[in-house]
Amino acid sequence: MTPSVNFEPLVPLDFLERSESVYPDKPAVIHGGTTYTYAQYSERTRRLAAGLQELGVGRGDRVAILAPNIPAMLDAKFGPMRIGAALVPINVRLSPREIAYILRHSGAKALIFDTEYADAVRAFRDSVPNLGAFVQVADVAPMAGDIPGPDYEDFLAASDLARLSEVRIDEGEAISVNYTSGTTGFPKGVVFHARGAWVNAVGEALETGLTWRSVYLWTLPLFHCNGWCFPWAIAAVGGTSVCLRKVVPAEVYRLIEEHGVTHLCCAPTVLTSLYASPEAEGRDLSGVTITTAGAAPAPLVIRTMEGMGAKVHHVYGLTETYGPYTICADQPGWDALDPESRARVKARQGVAYGVAGTGLRVVDEQMKDVPPDGKTMGEVVMRGNMVMTGYFNDEKATADAFRGGWFHSGDLAVRHSDGYVELKDRSKDIIISGGENVSSQEVEKVLMEHPDVLEVCVVGIPHEKWGEVPKAFVVPRDGATVTAGEVIEHARERLAHYKCPKQVEFGDLPKTATGKIQKFVLRDREWKGRDRQIAG
Amino acid sequence: MTPSVNFEPLVPLDFLERSESVYPDKPAVIHGGTTYTYAQYSERTRRLAAGLQELGVGRGDRVAILAPNIPAMLDAKFGPMRIGAALVPINVRLSPREIAYILRHSGAKALIFDTEYADAVRAFRDSVPNLGAFVQVADVAPMAGDIPGPDYEDFLAASDLARLSEVRIDEGEAISVNYTSGTTGFPKGVVFHARGAWVNAVGEALETGLTWRSVYLWTLPLFHCNGWCFPWAIAAVGGTSVCLRKVVPAEVYRLIEEHGVTHLCCAPTVLTSLYASPEAEGRDLSGVTITTAGAAPAPLVIRTMEGMGAKVHHVYGLTETYGPYTICADQPGWDALDPESRARVKARQGVAYGVAGTGLRVVDEQMKDVPPDGKTMGEVVMRGNMVMTGYFNDEKATADAFRGGWFHSGDLAVRHSDGYVELKDRSKDIIISGGENVSSQEVEKVLMEHPDVLEVCVVGIPHEKWGEVPKAFVVPRDGATVTAGEVIEHARERLAHYKCPKQVEFGDLPKTATGKIQKFVLRDREWKGRDRQIAG
Repeated sequence: MTPSVNFEPLVPLDFLERSESVYPDKPAVIHGGTTYTYAQYSERTRRLAAGLQELGVGRGDRVAILAPNIPAMLDAKFGPMRIGAALVPINVRLSPREIAYILRHSGAKALIFDTEYADAVRAFRDSVPNLGAFVQVADVAPMAGDIPGPDYEDFLAASDLARLSEVRIDEGEAISVNYTSGTTGFPKGVVFHARGAWVNAVGEALETGLTWRSVYLWTLPLFHCNGWCFPWAIAAVGGTSVCLRKVVPAEVYRLIEEHGVTHLCCAPTVLTSLYASPEAEGRDLSGVTITTAGAAPAPLVIRTMEGMGAKVHHVYGLTETYGPYTICADQPGWDALDPESRARVKARQGVAYGVAGTGLRVVDEQMKDVPPDGKTMGEVVMRGNMVMTGYFNDEKATADAFRGGWFHSGDLAVRHSDGYVELKDRSKDIIISGGENVSSQEVEKVLMEHPDVLEVCVVGIPHEKWGEVPKAFVVPRDGATVTAGEVIEHARERLAHYKCPKQVEFGDLPKTATGKIQKFVLRDREWKGRDRQIAG
Repeated sequence: MTPSVNFEPLVPLDFLERSESVYPDKPAVIHGGTTYTYAQYSERTRRLAAGLQELGVGRGDRVAILAPNIPAMLDAKFGPMRIGAALVPINVRLSPREIAYILRHSGAKALIFDTEYADAVRAFRDSVPNLGAFVQVADVAPMAGDIPGPDYEDFLAASDLARLSEVRIDEGEAISVNYTSGTTGFPKGVVFHARGAWVNAVGEALETGLTWRSVYLWTLPLFHCNGWCFPWAIAAVGGTSVCLRKVVPAEVYRLIEEHGVTHLCCAPTVLTSLYASPEAEGRDLSGVTITTAGAAPAPLVIRTMEGMGAKVHHVYGLTETYGPYTICADQPGWDALDPESRARVKARQGVAYGVAGTGLRVVDEQMKDVPPDGKTMGEVVMRGNMVMTGYFNDEKATADAFRGGWFHSGDLAVRHSDGYVELKDRSKDIIISGGENVSSQEVEKVLMEHPDVLEVCVVGIPHEKWGEVPKAFVVPRDGATVTAGEVIEHARERLAHYKCPKQVEFGDLPKTATGKIQKFVLRDREWKGRDRQIAG
């Protein structure tokens, strides 16, 4: 559909255009001592678009970024969209081999990278022939002289705005491709369409109470589901983003105070590190709204943060749903509950997001809704505007994820009598460690490459700090003398470290009569005595 | 486009479905001593849909309602939508002749009416052959035995939910047709598409800070632009509506206190009556967010309401833009302004709504933007999702309103250096009296029917209470002895009373050399010494 007098595609770029026009002089992005106003922020995204266009990036292309939460990352949420290109944000914790896979699979034409990750770029450069150009962001580390490509700020300054030809994309077009560890071995590229991002951002702003007075601290990685669409939500209201390269509790508390932070998002494990830090002593977070997701938070986490004065929203979703799809919506009676009971009801994943979420069900294998009895487990399925276009260049995986006309989350949950959904378990193949998804199959595949490993099974086990960590059960080859340390080292050379097993146990694996490994037996053993088999 | 795993039409009905599912036991609608929870409210809309379907109303049909702000009116905002029918809400202040025109023009198949207006129904009944069915709401007046049709509550109770067949409409389909006095003589039916209402409601919720804790008092007529889309915005967040048949200051204050009202909307003249009332004495409105529109509010009105503690949003739009299209968005520095200066900047119409509004320009006759100098006047034009589908069954008027690919408001404004739009004048043919649009051509046409009137020109003149009122300049026929009182009486028999001239002046009319009446000369004379030629 083309724009007309009464139809305008829903594209997040309009959010920035509006804030540029209404709040040109208001701080949009703060990074250390540098502040960009909305006029400057928008111009930077325009310059980025112009520069990319000069590099040959155009409508329907992909451009990748490998950077922590710095201004370039926020620029990238809008720059490529201006010329109809999609952004591929890459998890900085991945190994060079994993990054190379994503860059090749996405067919990215250019890569913007923070020079802190220059070693990784050196390692994969030669194996990604499609990568025609590099741009280097020398934020804390110096320029890498041996890698071609200009300094990011020079690149922006040199771009010719007069030659920029912006594209008005349709709302169904791709604005981002986010690689995520699915249940199968290789990461899959989740395609975000503009309409879904628009709708999610608006839901986000409404559910978390964002306004032009909001100051948002980037404790959540911007590469995760595009920072759950918050860059677009913040631009929608004209709020201020405060950048943060690395989550260090003392720095988080300092920035909250210095900038009067009102909102932040993070995984429950980050909250744990925040309140466990000595800096937490005597802190008053009463002006701060925290949205937590990425794993199921323990009631204790919610209770503790609320005890410090923060307002806590618990949301749940997947990269495939643009981040949050559900919210544990407050109810009239909850204010009066004692802190413990309130934390317990709020630890549930809840109901579909307001305005943005539509279809949300918990179903059995025949796609019938489970009874709302708080006991019967089923799979969480979603549909509507907040479901991805599909997996990039992977029709088979897309068709499988969309079977029956619903997106299958792989997460297992119950529905309570009040309609609230609570996760109890997830697809046996996903481990969430410190808010990062780990595919146990991917880890198994890498471990199988070790010459002394005959068979292997990886499961998530409970961990105090990271919620879950991978554990490998290994059957060594006859006569092999491989040690746990060697198995772990083998993994660390090939995978992001958070994906590597923290424990290795040698011995036989439980199997069915037909020889299939019974992963659930190993998990049951590790999670014995717990209410659910997932943790945050 | 049909719904699919990753596409769901944006239809406001989803707001109600979500609140029914998340907040089933929360008060949705309060009317006197009666409260309907969200489960009950949604069921009522379902019963209304079922009943209408039994009457033969279906997809693409129109159903009309003539009622003040009572629960039936809120039911009607969702009931017809369930079966793909569009609602025609009628201004209760119109004359029977005017109502009959709307009912005929819209081809409404059924009319729901409050029995307080039974006399009007009696007067036009025979002249609207398309009206196949009536439903009577006996809220304060008894049932009209001589008019067919069941009692509304009986109608709901008798409808067969099992036979209801709901329709999933596309987002481009009509959900409402709102008749408005345009610049030409006859009211025109503004067609609302579902997507526009959805987007406007979401913008509304964000801009005015609606949440599930919000309690909204219905001081704004629900027949005006569907209560500016607030019935959908409130349902979107799960807020509570408090009904109000008639704006009586003492009752408004009582309800604010009794129900802890957080939000209300109204025309500036209503605010004037609120603060001028003896009940205003010592009132604290600090928990109340007021959104005012319908005419340009004087800075004094904003200042006075803010002095009582209320938060005042000033918005501007037309029925053709689903109500509010712009908002005088707060700016960082404004909190620190003295009350007088703040009221002055806030009395401007402002900028496009967040997330919902896209195109907003002030243009000259060649569709070129006027310079942002605060002086050069141009016409306000809009485009995007918040622009109507068009005028119902009036291609010519639609094409004229959409000329150049933009909706032409007919309002004349300047753009300030900060980008804010300020109305200075409007199409010479529209008068806004007490928040109601009056077409001066329509009044002229009726006055010309008087046998003693030779020529007539109607303009809006300033009025302390109503902002503007119509004044008629009459050239009597030779030898006629008609008096001002007779002219006014003639109008009152045929038009809504707010449209009738409050003053009549006899004498010659200023004309151009070619004999065209110079309306502007009369207006200039009446508005002499004022900064702008409109008032609120």
